[in-house]
Amino acid sequence: MRDKDFLMIPGPTPVPESVLLALAKHPIGHRSGEFSAILKRCHEGLKWLFQTENDVFIFTASGTGAMCSAMGNLVNRGDKVLSLVIGNFGQRWAKIAKSYGADVEIIEVPYGQAINPNVVRERLAKDVNKEIKIVTVTHNETSTGVTNPIKEIVAAIKEHGALSVVDGITSVGAIDCKQDEWGIDVLVSGSQKGFMIPPGLSFLSASKRAFEVHKQCEYPDFYFNWTDAKKNYDKDTTPWTPAINLIVALDKAFELLKEEGLENIIARHKHNATLLREGVKEMGLKLFVEDESIASYAITAILPPEGISVPDIRKTLKNDYNIVVANGQNDLKDRIFRMGTLGFCSERDVLTALASLKATINKLTK
Amino acid sequence: MRDKDFLMIPGPTPVPESVLLALAKHPIGHRSGEFSAILKRCHEGLKWLFQTENDVFIFTASGTGAMCSAMGNLVNRGDKVLSLVIGNFGQRWAKIAKSYGADVEIIEVPYGQAINPNVVRERLAKDVNKEIKIVTVTHNETSTGVTNPIKEIVAAIKEHGALSVVDGITSVGAIDCKQDEWGIDVLVSGSQKGFMIPPGLSFLSASKRAFEVHKQCEYPDFYFNWTDAKKNYDKDTTPWTPAINLIVALDKAFELLKEEGLENIIARHKHNATLLREGVKEMGLKLFVEDESIASYAITAILPPEGISVPDIRKTLKNDYNIVVANGQNDLKDRIFRMGTLGFCSERDVLTALASLKATINKLTK
Repeated sequence: MRDKDFLMIPGPTPVPESVLLALAKHPIGHRSGEFSAILKRCHEGLKWLFQTENDVFIFTASGTGAMCSAMGNLVNRGDKVLSLVIGNFGQRWAKIAKSYGADVEIIEVPYGQAINPNVVRERLAKDVNKEIKIVTVTHNETSTGVTNPIKEIVAAIKEHGALSVVDGITSVGAIDCKQDEWGIDVLVSGSQKGFMIPPGLSFLSASKRAFEVHKQCEYPDFYFNWTDAKKNYDKDTTPWTPAINLIVALDKAFELLKEEGLENIIARHKHNATLLREGVKEMGLKLFVEDESIASYAITAILPPEGISVPDIRKTLKNDYNIVVANGQNDLKDRIFRMGTLGFCSERDVLTALASLKATINKLTK
Repeated sequence: MRDKDFLMIPGPTPVPESVLLALAKHPIGHRSGEFSAILKRCHEGLKWLFQTENDVFIFTASGTGAMCSAMGNLVNRGDKVLSLVIGNFGQRWAKIAKSYGADVEIIEVPYGQAINPNVVRERLAKDVNKEIKIVTVTHNETSTGVTNPIKEIVAAIKEHGALSVVDGITSVGAIDCKQDEWGIDVLVSGSQKGFMIPPGLSFLSASKRAFEVHKQCEYPDFYFNWTDAKKNYDKDTTPWTPAINLIVALDKAFELLKEEGLENIIARHKHNATLLREGVKEMGLKLFVEDESIASYAITAILPPEGISVPDIRKTLKNDYNIVVANGQNDLKDRIFRMGTLGFCSERDVLTALASLKATINKLTK
């Protein structure tokens, strides 16, 4: 039966049935009072999940679009940006900053490790002339399954005074991320992750300080412009036609998320990822990230057992057990496979996945 | 009954039931063979509607995003751009070009009129040093209900040698627009118009010549980058996570569109708009665009009868007849109302709208 796939990739993540049905409603006009009411509820929901009093803008774009919005509203050509890189998505910040003409310096650690906040502190302490304007960092690095100690990293950035720009694409709504309390200046996220809706929307929240810096941006991005976004946000609308059906679906997803509660959502992700890690270790498989303190609660990277290939595991899981897991990316391709517990994922799903993975390994061992 | 609204705005347009059901399918992974097959069919469908042999890129963004892609992949700061403006959407081209640092000159005509190709020819003839690099123009101007004589305008641009960059957002799939035959260099469109799916996707097709100019762009847009789009297009994938469900819906919509055939689609739009115009005139109302040769087949702008306000007409049409029509924009607000016959609209829908408009006027006259 080919119509039963369960997605355990880092995104898109599974979508609840009631959200899919909301998605399928006839579109309504985006300049109507009805739509503004929906948008207003979504804005409130976003603030709640971002744990912020800032406005949270909705862009019709994938997460990379929101990342471009961050750089495209802050960077002038020649600005110094420091990018903390622990995987592919950290690299993406650096690439985007360069595309807007920034002078980018990279601090990189081997894949599978996290950034040490003291390394950041030491580097920034040397910047006596305060030339570094922005520091970019990934909260949860999906390519490796590592969660950075973002609170401590942001604290180190604050001591220096640069803006902290954080990719929370696979953390917001899954792993605790307190924008205001921790002092994150710009936080971005994406719809097909913790938000339990399909891809097509991304979100950005900027602090007052970041907004002041934006005002000095000579050629701010047009499509992702913060000034336009803010002007329209205040009227419960958007500058351009948004992905209406996805926003209606988001409104429905917030009902489910609010019913569960933020603490419970975060606890569920921790519980499911821990259950998965323990189950995998019991099977005799090795985890790519052995250090519990930096292991992601959204995505778990696993090494295949000796003699069995990653493509064979993925193929058997998909064809025989209707479970889709991700390969590694770039250098990690065929060296690890990655299983998501992100978004609409229950304990039952993890038990199912563990049983299926065990059966897969058994089948491939014979 | 509040769940029965029929959209006659210029977008979003109504979506067929089978397309809504496709939209509501569980998302599948965007790096899978299944999704690539869907994307490939959509690419073929887009080439067919764009009437081009060029690649047509799909962006997860509204139509304005595709417009930013055009400017953001061609313009270097200081480049000369000539914008031909007949309404709000023509103005948008000029604003976007400026946001990328272009030196923009505007040729504008009073709203309700079209651009005269000879005016373009004369202006460009004066540019003996060939400083004008790009000419932007709107095919169908939704804010006024005017369709520019795009074939003749593009011919005038070709004589000069500048790139023609055309907004086909409300023309492609509704009003004849032959990209290759007419020599349009860059053509953009959006999903919630002739494509019969909700908003969230936009499309761009660039000629070989435009692609050569793109290669000279110093800081091309990152999110909407053509080089990345092309590299991924050739592998039936996208650089970033696309709005998967909207692409699945697009694939379904193409089934319906292909079944009808492009000639029939264009003829249906012409027939429906003509029927609407004649019916409105019979009622004694005035059309904002009286000249049949430039009247849009996608959107018809209508003046309210003496003594009846546009807001009252819109409110009565919506509350009593469940029909949503658009107000005018900017200076035309409350001076005209606009009725769309764009996308999934049948002759029955037009007859229904005419009967409802007549009843509305009668009711408001009493």
